Amino acid sequence: MKYVTKTKPRRRSDCPVACTLDLVGDRWTMLIVRDLVQGKRYFAEFQSSPEKIATNILSARLQVLCAQGLVEKIPDPTDQRRFAYELSEDGVRLRELLGDMARWGLKYFRGTKPLDGIRLPQR
Amino acid sequence: MKYVTKTKPRRRSDCPVACTLDLVGDRWTMLIVRDLVQGKRYFAEFQSSPEKIATNILSARLQVLCAQGLVEKIPDPTDQRRFAYELSEDGVRLRELLGDMARWGLKYFRGTKPLDGIRLPQR
Repeated sequence: MKYVTKTKPRRRSDCPVACTLDLVGDRWTMLIVRDLVQGKRYFAEFQSSPEKIATNILSARLQVLCAQGLVEKIPDPTDQRRFAYELSEDGVRLRELLGDMARWGLKYFRGTKPLDGIRLPQR
Repeated sequence: MKYVTKTKPRRRSDCPVACTLDLVGDRWTMLIVRDLVQGKRYFAEFQSSPEKIATNILSARLQVLCAQGLVEKIPDPTDQRRFAYELSEDGVRLRELLGDMARWGLKYFRGTKPLDGIRLPQR
């Protein structure tokens, strides 16, 4: 695994799909990645997304993303009392997968809308 | 949603990523899809995959996939006493997403191996 992770997720097999799912195989992680890619930085911003993630799930997912080295939690430069989140250099790689999922969803789910600021991979 | 599903999954939002995750946002579903794409058809074959899915999880996921109209459960033509599973016409669309995930995993997880019989999307 090329990722420098603080907690190495146990690898279930050498299948590239299984490894990808070990990292982001749940209903919420890629939605937080989506929000980060779209410029959201604060806990309350993630909470305000239309899927209405529960506070405890959001906390848990952010903690795992930070532990995996995909997201960084930093003191907010404009207000040192609160924290901001951003994708790490490793985490930025998830943009590609996000684009793939967005492209697939747009193709097969009627009425879904393109994501602001996310360029879809061309085929 | 273009899928004809028996159970319509509740849509969390009009985000194409959220809709995709409503369908396959867990650690196991896309591994069953992978097995089906690679020609596996029987319950015992899915169980024998290297990730060693638990019987109860496999049963539950197959049931959901059938209810969503993505997989069909049919009497095995060679032995009517047992059942075989195959991707439906709708389910075959998941091949594209599987290819995306495989491509991403191969790129970023060291030591992962290409999947037999699965052609990766070109970029």
